[in-house]
Amino acid sequence: MPRVLNFSAGPAVLPEAVLRQAQAEMLDWRGTGACVAELSHRGAPFMALAAEVETDVRTLLGVPDTHAVLFLAGGATTVQALLPLNFAVRDQHADYLVTGHWAKVAMKQGAPAVDAHVVASSEAQRFTAMPDKSQWQRSPDAAYFHVTANETIHGVELPDDIDDGTIAPLIADFSSNIASRPSDISRYAMIYAGAQKNLGPSGITLAIVRRDLLERRGQPRADILTWASHAAQGSMLNTPPTWNWYLLGLCVRWMIEQGGTGEFARRNGEKAAMVYAAIDDSKGFYRNDVVTSVRSRMNIPFVLHDAALDAVFLAESQAAGLIGLKGHKAVGGMRASLYNAMPVDGVRTLVDFMQDFRKRHG
Amino acid sequence: MPRVLNFSAGPAVLPEAVLRQAQAEMLDWRGTGACVAELSHRGAPFMALAAEVETDVRTLLGVPDTHAVLFLAGGATTVQALLPLNFAVRDQHADYLVTGHWAKVAMKQGAPAVDAHVVASSEAQRFTAMPDKSQWQRSPDAAYFHVTANETIHGVELPDDIDDGTIAPLIADFSSNIASRPSDISRYAMIYAGAQKNLGPSGITLAIVRRDLLERRGQPRADILTWASHAAQGSMLNTPPTWNWYLLGLCVRWMIEQGGTGEFARRNGEKAAMVYAAIDDSKGFYRNDVVTSVRSRMNIPFVLHDAALDAVFLAESQAAGLIGLKGHKAVGGMRASLYNAMPVDGVRTLVDFMQDFRKRHG
Repeated sequence: MPRVLNFSAGPAVLPEAVLRQAQAEMLDWRGTGACVAELSHRGAPFMALAAEVETDVRTLLGVPDTHAVLFLAGGATTVQALLPLNFAVRDQHADYLVTGHWAKVAMKQGAPAVDAHVVASSEAQRFTAMPDKSQWQRSPDAAYFHVTANETIHGVELPDDIDDGTIAPLIADFSSNIASRPSDISRYAMIYAGAQKNLGPSGITLAIVRRDLLERRGQPRADILTWASHAAQGSMLNTPPTWNWYLLGLCVRWMIEQGGTGEFARRNGEKAAMVYAAIDDSKGFYRNDVVTSVRSRMNIPFVLHDAALDAVFLAESQAAGLIGLKGHKAVGGMRASLYNAMPVDGVRTLVDFMQDFRKRHG
Repeated sequence: MPRVLNFSAGPAVLPEAVLRQAQAEMLDWRGTGACVAELSHRGAPFMALAAEVETDVRTLLGVPDTHAVLFLAGGATTVQALLPLNFAVRDQHADYLVTGHWAKVAMKQGAPAVDAHVVASSEAQRFTAMPDKSQWQRSPDAAYFHVTANETIHGVELPDDIDDGTIAPLIADFSSNIASRPSDISRYAMIYAGAQKNLGPSGITLAIVRRDLLERRGQPRADILTWASHAAQGSMLNTPPTWNWYLLGLCVRWMIEQGGTGEFARRNGEKAAMVYAAIDDSKGFYRNDVVTSVRSRMNIPFVLHDAALDAVFLAESQAAGLIGLKGHKAVGGMRASLYNAMPVDGVRTLVDFMQDFRKRHG
């Protein structure tokens, strides 16, 4: 079967060059005579890899020395559960901006260990807009202010200057748009991202944390749930997900070689513009209701004017080698996820398909 | 570089047939036109895989219907931190049998959330023996009784009939000897195992839990830290480590095809007997102090009669294509880990090397 064009929201398309390299060195990585997944994380070859990947992450994202870089097992949801345990005292406020499904998940996971407070919510607008900043209700004593930089289900992406972090440390879930454009990391006390969208495979989460936050006492918890301990041990407090770390490293190196976040901002802008144009110019055949200024460049949900066509669209697109286009059940319709590893030409193929489908079914 | 013989304690050697299959299908898994790591965990192909792997795990290990099978992100240490949160009320006793380094880690991770109680410890014997059962001090009200089925650092393996679970539910860390011989899972309320020794790559942990334990209320915690929620969602409460799950599945299938746990018990017995004979017949050149009845079949630590030879042994063994033999710093010397994927012939090569080394340096 030839390679398909994969528009899945995550796990998602990986760079073909990365997969070919991983394939080539599956039985002999760097002359060790073993797969990287077989080697001790405390041996010299893997320790060297870990150091290289951290350097590359710092280069790609422009991480300042004030911030530690952590590679954590599991996904972003676990990070959300551990945020208050690491950074808040019980009954302290923590502020959450609710811009979609994933912001709600972050608050739900944090709520058992902190007084989670909704700063503002766009749920009444079905998460199609940014909550009006003049209406935000901030807690003066909040342990942190949590935002979701991109909502994969609702297709809403926050501007990078959403908050300056002066009222409370700004913490952002960047799972689905990390490295998609240049960002000023110094604005954030912490950003985190499950790798399975823009960084690699699932099973590893990148966390970038300002070091002063790691000194907070937090709440009673096990050492393995304590990020300061992970930071002190170079993310090897226990056996890390080594193959995932390796593949993340290959993806980060690939992004640097492709031109870095500036180049991906250009490509992602071009890709998103093509799809939104195909929607907006369809005379209502396709529809996306998100306010233009916060439309996501990464995940574009759209509905067909007649939901009876959904199954036809999915069957025909799959037959044409385009997969992962089914929308999340919360919003229905379709969704095209256009992460860094999705080439511009792949999106052109999608847009051509959308226009052809509309001609045949319009 | 030809394939080395990898005696690492974990991450550890994987079956070559598994690596070759993963290599072959890296860009096109099961005709999907994608790597398994690129596919949505909620799509039909991965959902089918997940169901197959659970069936195969149940077949390989003989898991009764009374027990749920969970595939969790991260490692065994996180499981240890979550045990009291899921199964105990705060200030309740939890009993721990302390037979080595990893038993101590399990207790340390649990201690912030439970009154962790030492039933018995062999630390005074430098963890070379089993704590005398007549001296055990059990708590009548313990939430559970935790044992470490195999100690990778100290080379101590518990007999399968260590406890019948009648005083408190028996929970065992099987990270380093799962599937190494037939075990009666029904004895255990829960067993868990980081995959990176006998099951696959790091980054995923298998947990087998009696369903009645999942009904315990435990302590306030986030949904993502709650195993009942994972069980209710087929281990897809959030995005699981899909590639790790896939590779674990390939390893489990390989173990079934090789003849299952009975066959591995035979091979592992033969492998361990060869190495212990090389040690015990060396007239003190090599030494292992563990009491014979609890000597591990998986991890065999040994010291050389002259520690000045350690560096020579490591350099020469590495030159001969034998890697991962350096002992843990807590006990020094050497360690040979002989997991299921290490062939009998590989161990024969190690033993030949040990005997030759002794002749040349004895």
